[in-house]
Amino acid sequence: MSLLRYDPTTNDWIVFSSERSRRPHDTALPPAPPNDASQCPFCPGHEDRTPPELFALRDGPGGAWSVRVFANKFPVLSPESGHDHVEEGRAFRRLGGYGAHEIVVESPDHRTFLGHQPVDQIDRVLRTLLARFNTLVQDTRLRAVVVFKNHGAAAGTSLQHPHWQIIATPVVPRLMRIRHTIATDYFDRTGRCVYCDLLEDERAAWARVIAANDHYTAILPYASHAPYQVRILPRAHRASFGRVPEEELRPLAAILREVLSRLHAALGDPAFNLTINTAPRGDEHKPYYLWHIEIIPRLTTPAGFELGCGMSINTVLPEDATDVLRQAAPAA
Amino acid sequence: MSLLRYDPTTNDWIVFSSERSRRPHDTALPPAPPNDASQCPFCPGHEDRTPPELFALRDGPGGAWSVRVFANKFPVLSPESGHDHVEEGRAFRRLGGYGAHEIVVESPDHRTFLGHQPVDQIDRVLRTLLARFNTLVQDTRLRAVVVFKNHGAAAGTSLQHPHWQIIATPVVPRLMRIRHTIATDYFDRTGRCVYCDLLEDERAAWARVIAANDHYTAILPYASHAPYQVRILPRAHRASFGRVPEEELRPLAAILREVLSRLHAALGDPAFNLTINTAPRGDEHKPYYLWHIEIIPRLTTPAGFELGCGMSINTVLPEDATDVLRQAAPAA
Repeated sequence: MSLLRYDPTTNDWIVFSSERSRRPHDTALPPAPPNDASQCPFCPGHEDRTPPELFALRDGPGGAWSVRVFANKFPVLSPESGHDHVEEGRAFRRLGGYGAHEIVVESPDHRTFLGHQPVDQIDRVLRTLLARFNTLVQDTRLRAVVVFKNHGAAAGTSLQHPHWQIIATPVVPRLMRIRHTIATDYFDRTGRCVYCDLLEDERAAWARVIAANDHYTAILPYASHAPYQVRILPRAHRASFGRVPEEELRPLAAILREVLSRLHAALGDPAFNLTINTAPRGDEHKPYYLWHIEIIPRLTTPAGFELGCGMSINTVLPEDATDVLRQAAPAA
Repeated sequence: MSLLRYDPTTNDWIVFSSERSRRPHDTALPPAPPNDASQCPFCPGHEDRTPPELFALRDGPGGAWSVRVFANKFPVLSPESGHDHVEEGRAFRRLGGYGAHEIVVESPDHRTFLGHQPVDQIDRVLRTLLARFNTLVQDTRLRAVVVFKNHGAAAGTSLQHPHWQIIATPVVPRLMRIRHTIATDYFDRTGRCVYCDLLEDERAAWARVIAANDHYTAILPYASHAPYQVRILPRAHRASFGRVPEEELRPLAAILREVLSRLHAALGDPAFNLTINTAPRGDEHKPYYLWHIEIIPRLTTPAGFELGCGMSINTVLPEDATDVLRQAAPAA
């Protein structure tokens, strides 16, 4: 069972997930399932080694699955945890670890890379993420649904079989709250969305655009926090990923494929974290925020300065990184 | 030359430091000086391989140095950079990379560990940090002075010779601003300091105290962001490290030695980042904040969830980690 504790010096809720380690010495994550495909619990034929299936896309009834969803065996948060808020003395507050933690296996193929998959398959993955997002967001005990993908050991995963994760939380996580508050303040001040303004200026400059289609633009932001950070922004203004119409997922699949395959070609299959940034639950209809995708290659190690004071040091100007990515060949 | 760019979606200033990489492909830090002591620029006899000495403690005039300070050869920020604020269109703002980046070599000994040094030597290191802090803080073009130490490759340093770093910034870094704002709000609401309240409650509970003397208490915070995170808090309420009287540095050296040697013994010389958290320049006299030391062992890799939404996942309860550290033998 997990729980959350409140830090009044940063207004953060920290998740304590003891199921993810067995002894206090054992700070590492649980041992990853074997990367040998014959032993991999995410591979077809091994469905009985995962928690029960929550969702799947299949080739017709009873056919083989192309995308498959189940609960994480070592959940960070879980619907079985309580939701009670307890004050322990004046300074200490905790909350039950109620939530959800799901695995979305993005392909039956153990060794494939998302940026090399057909657009059709990426579209299926996105449809699955959208369906699970919109199921989870209906639970009024939750405040946020975070959809993300870790690729490579430096990005915090040692699992080879390609997958995404969805974590639904009973509080609004810090960065989501900060981004939403800042966008709301900007809207109050200017009557406009800060992300739409930035997108317009980035499109006008075109110095940091690496891919674009009728619905989406992929940029390396002017003030990138890390080398080769990529942001994919939609043209249509919606606060929540959950409100994207299905027909706008295919162009998203196409631009995601182009971006990931260019990163793969230019940087030699770098580790990366990908997150879908979206409004907190309950703010989906409001005009302040613009949902978007953020991809952070893990090329450098944040050290004491970054961790201690929160200021990022970036060793590559995004204009220079844009040149490199524009020259890289995307997947055919 | 470095520069800062403003991110209006997070209110962050990002430091772009191209001197720290040579080509856009080259995102890694500059090659570390050789770890062979005979080649190490931080070792005695090699003083001509570093930028000019800014400060040193010596055994008498002309004697051997015990602590030595000079500018970083690959500075993140530098007094030679400009301080001009430029608006590039509606959304883009940048600032010259004015600031300072200093190296504090903590011992002539290439292979020593701070937690195994005599209290006298740690006291000398702290006196040096205090002197440099109070010199830098007089520059009215600066807004913050960040003092930190990285230990081990997983903490972002590949340099073996033990050292600290000081970075002085022309803007208030995000986490420093957030911590200070939250402490100020808490003070406005309650008339008390949030750190002093937490310290009092942690001392009353005593479940997460791992070391204490007349002037300092070392705790594993109730809402620790990472396994084995240690916070050292002073009993005397001062907002700034720069205002600590010299006679309170020796008990700080003693508790720092005990904490670091217990971490070393319990976890097998873990990589860690250590930061002195202090008030921004100009707020040193105000009662809202309490300066303190934070030590974060780098035992886990933050992944997409933590990076994307800012919520920490901690796999070890601080009470359990406290038991482990209490049983570990400190340096004799």
